Amino acid sequence: MAVYTDVSDEELAAFIDCYGIGPVTSFKGIAEGVENTNYLLKTATGTYILTLYEKRVDAADLPFFLGLMEHLAERGITCPLPLKSRSGEPIGRLAGRPAAIITFLDGVWHRHPTARHTEQVGAALARFHLAGADFAIPRANALGPSGWRPLYERSRLRADDVALGLAQEIDRELEFFATTWPKDLPAGVIHADLFPDNVFFLNDTLSGLIDFYFACNDMLAYDLGICLNSWCFRENGSYDVDKGRAMLTAYDGVRRLSEAEWQALPILCRGSALRFLLTRLYDWLNVPKGALVRPKDPLEYRVKLAFHRAVRSVADYGVDAKALRR
Amino acid sequence: MAVYTDVSDEELAAFIDCYGIGPVTSFKGIAEGVENTNYLLKTATGTYILTLYEKRVDAADLPFFLGLMEHLAERGITCPLPLKSRSGEPIGRLAGRPAAIITFLDGVWHRHPTARHTEQVGAALARFHLAGADFAIPRANALGPSGWRPLYERSRLRADDVALGLAQEIDRELEFFATTWPKDLPAGVIHADLFPDNVFFLNDTLSGLIDFYFACNDMLAYDLGICLNSWCFRENGSYDVDKGRAMLTAYDGVRRLSEAEWQALPILCRGSALRFLLTRLYDWLNVPKGALVRPKDPLEYRVKLAFHRAVRSVADYGVDAKALRR
Repeated sequence: MAVYTDVSDEELAAFIDCYGIGPVTSFKGIAEGVENTNYLLKTATGTYILTLYEKRVDAADLPFFLGLMEHLAERGITCPLPLKSRSGEPIGRLAGRPAAIITFLDGVWHRHPTARHTEQVGAALARFHLAGADFAIPRANALGPSGWRPLYERSRLRADDVALGLAQEIDRELEFFATTWPKDLPAGVIHADLFPDNVFFLNDTLSGLIDFYFACNDMLAYDLGICLNSWCFRENGSYDVDKGRAMLTAYDGVRRLSEAEWQALPILCRGSALRFLLTRLYDWLNVPKGALVRPKDPLEYRVKLAFHRAVRSVADYGVDAKALRR
Repeated sequence: MAVYTDVSDEELAAFIDCYGIGPVTSFKGIAEGVENTNYLLKTATGTYILTLYEKRVDAADLPFFLGLMEHLAERGITCPLPLKSRSGEPIGRLAGRPAAIITFLDGVWHRHPTARHTEQVGAALARFHLAGADFAIPRANALGPSGWRPLYERSRLRADDVALGLAQEIDRELEFFATTWPKDLPAGVIHADLFPDNVFFLNDTLSGLIDFYFACNDMLAYDLGICLNSWCFRENGSYDVDKGRAMLTAYDGVRRLSEAEWQALPILCRGSALRFLLTRLYDWLNVPKGALVRPKDPLEYRVKLAFHRAVRSVADYGVDAKALRR
């Protein structure tokens, strides 16, 4: 939740004028997104989101993010579409920051998703992967295995303040992943952050995907692991086999997973759990005490990590991969 | 800016159902308002604001606030209108809190208002005062002179940390106001917080007033003093005589100020400046360091306070009250 940058009337009017979408009729800060400043913008021509990109987003990545949205929208994935200015540019400058206007997407995200939702998310993720296949701009995953250790070094000395034994556990995980990480699996553009708050539904039917600001190139099945972690566990930390089966089966129904991908899934899920444990641990240790933004609990991902460490095959996720092969 | 309370899908759907406004098509936290949780709510029937009243608002005051909006709207003041549930109630309960749905008001607030704006605000405030005259529910002003000293006691020991000499200055002001405060001036419902962010414009024409959660009964000219302070000073702290003259003249054009009100205006402005200095001082000293909500600068109001202390008559505000009498 955040509005980091205030925009003056004059600046706003001049900026909007570049897009030819008429005078502003409403302009309100939105309490969503921790990376950027987002405003809900209404004009005579419609409703939009105006985003100012704050320091945590590298301006050099914007052509990737905005280009990807346009690419996906052209291929039938419902996602916000960046507007182009009169000079044909999707990226402008406002209040000293890179800024863009994207279309507003109707829909609500579900705080308590069910298997009916995870099934649709699995299918949507597969369609996203297929649609992204011919996207030309590359972007490395800064939060892949090679980024984990440097990230962890910034939290390590205080990890045990969060939970006793956490430092040693993460040390061992990093050691494990230093030698064990799948290669040669199908790769492409991944969303990398398709959590429930980034998937909209209308009347329980998936209506769109948002927030592509972690998207990058990586193994497609790793993205599925991120989704499984963020959608298919109960609040008490236990894995929900119905939700997981629904997601994996639906994904496989749209984009067939290879034998190698099925086999790699437990380790990809485990790696994804570690990645979110590490970023949450860092945020947990570095958010000022008493700040209104409550950092997300890193330990939620410690529990998920332990679950995947114990998984022996995808059967533990509720699917019979061999049966899916038939 | 704040979303303090999260709302689950099931709770939201059940709540909306009480109002018969159809299924939710969008639901986003708004980063405005520091007292309550506000969501932008879209359904098949329109766009609304859903407000959850947090601890700082006394639930016993809600019939006053919501009743006032309805009362004003019926008298042609453009302001949000609370929806009534199927059972006729404007106040419901959601996520353990009192909650209401109000209509969404188009318009933008001006960060840098001009005299064209302050003129309209003066006239709108006068219309507000006239429209509120026959509103039946009373509500005392907890932030009137009798509330200033107890409020200050909670900041006093640290006031000089904010600015050297501030404690002594406030002590003297409180001493002054203990014996000097106008009585017997026309009173009624005042907005008490009509700052620029609570006044909407469309194409530079005032389109509505919002946020009635400080409204109460008090002297009408005191409300004008609050407005003058919040609209008619430059960023460098100096009084803008053009903006002030425009506001005062326009107010007087709609609701004629009595001789006694004109004479009392400097002291009412001075009291209003002290009131906002005190609440901002408290917030400044009690917001956790590093929190994303930046507290407003109390010293802005110290400068205004000093200005009004030096004022000898309304001529210093740019108006010849005698001329307005003719």
